[in-house]
Amino acid sequence: MDIPIWNNMKEKLTIIKVGGKIVEEPDSLKQLLNDFSQVTGHKVLVHGGGRSATKLASDLGIESKMVNGRRITDADMLNVVTMVYGGLVNKKIVAGLQSLNVNALGLTGADMNVIRSVKRPVKDVDYGFVGDVETVDGKLLSKLIKKGIVPVMAPLTHDGKGNLLNTNADTIAGETAQSLAPYFDVTLIFCFEKKGVLKDADDENSMIPILTPEIFQQCREDGTISGGMIPKLENSFAALNAGVSKVIITLATAIDGESGTVIQL
Amino acid sequence: MDIPIWNNMKEKLTIIKVGGKIVEEPDSLKQLLNDFSQVTGHKVLVHGGGRSATKLASDLGIESKMVNGRRITDADMLNVVTMVYGGLVNKKIVAGLQSLNVNALGLTGADMNVIRSVKRPVKDVDYGFVGDVETVDGKLLSKLIKKGIVPVMAPLTHDGKGNLLNTNADTIAGETAQSLAPYFDVTLIFCFEKKGVLKDADDENSMIPILTPEIFQQCREDGTISGGMIPKLENSFAALNAGVSKVIITLATAIDGESGTVIQL
Repeated sequence: MDIPIWNNMKEKLTIIKVGGKIVEEPDSLKQLLNDFSQVTGHKVLVHGGGRSATKLASDLGIESKMVNGRRITDADMLNVVTMVYGGLVNKKIVAGLQSLNVNALGLTGADMNVIRSVKRPVKDVDYGFVGDVETVDGKLLSKLIKKGIVPVMAPLTHDGKGNLLNTNADTIAGETAQSLAPYFDVTLIFCFEKKGVLKDADDENSMIPILTPEIFQQCREDGTISGGMIPKLENSFAALNAGVSKVIITLATAIDGESGTVIQL
Repeated sequence: MDIPIWNNMKEKLTIIKVGGKIVEEPDSLKQLLNDFSQVTGHKVLVHGGGRSATKLASDLGIESKMVNGRRITDADMLNVVTMVYGGLVNKKIVAGLQSLNVNALGLTGADMNVIRSVKRPVKDVDYGFVGDVETVDGKLLSKLIKKGIVPVMAPLTHDGKGNLLNTNADTIAGETAQSLAPYFDVTLIFCFEKKGVLKDADDENSMIPILTPEIFQQCREDGTISGGMIPKLENSFAALNAGVSKVIITLATAIDGESGTVIQL
């Protein structure tokens, strides 16, 4: 059933996912928070923090092991990411946004049971305390957002049995966008260090302006798109299929969504 | 104006402050969360985490300096307490309570601007990034609580200028109780390692059953009560004077409030 007028009647919501150095270095964080504070309308920020987690782990003599770009999370590493994602990065962002009159609320998936996940089953790899998202409480989030609260979401979820689980921030952004699509006209923006999805990772001029499932399939087969970009794009298409209006992949300095690669069906 | 019937008409709220080893050792934490889940009616948990902060700081080669029982908080130590209080301890409690069907929401003072503080002025001692509470948004907290949410409050506040500030958990409990007194019939319970306020710290049988301002004054003068108990009791009397119905100091294994020292005006 396609009733586009409904989308026009919904209020706009922008979900911005930022990761990497951007949220972990004081100057770029400050710039990001300033830019984010100027995004008009309802908004949500989803953050990562992997570099800080690796740094803290290293300082504590804990080795960081990555498989397919995902962190192996044993009990010690779970403590590290809980401290860094749920504490250090999340609360610095929240305090920074409050100083810019953004009424931020830091959330992990455990808070108010917002994101329930299941510990990833062991197949070829035992990722440890890593969660695959089961449900996001979009209804609850939508109520908070409509009251003017700006959720700041850390990449941690819980299994309902008392365990926190390390969860990919792109996945959280995508699943959160999907859960909010019934309530808002949602734009999802993935920010990272490049202008958008590049055909040649070393050439910023090779950005693909519009990416459809057909182009994605082709770029995947010929190897133009690989690595961490694949789950990011899979999340993007899943979000669009679930009713998200628009997905953009762009630079963290372009969170107005006016540039970058537009993902569309 | 004394209209006691009002208090009888208000719904009951129990605010429990726990600190020390209780929240930092898996077995005692589990027991505490079980006990807390069985407290009937509306409730709030306020926690500390100092031992874990000292341990993490030590593991990172950061020295913990205490003056008058308060932690000197430089920039590195602020990161440590943000990680431990806002992340590790808070989120473990939240995930644990969710598994017991308590709809916990972890909060620092920065989240939704719940507790605004001011950096403690430098007099004899420069405590660094330590906050003295200015305002607690009792109205907002009361709305959350009436929706069935259980705030779990970390001992961190913010100054509205982007800085998190380390803040004494007893103070947060006392100020939060005061801010909620207009909305609820509030019982404030401070839990620690002793049965109550003891005349002789080494003799559990020396507990003072009822402590009034007169007895406090006397015990203070003769040295029976000293150290960290003094601000705890000052917080207690301030809370009672601001409309909190009942304050109890007791063991963490007695959070039902049926034993311990009752503080009364």
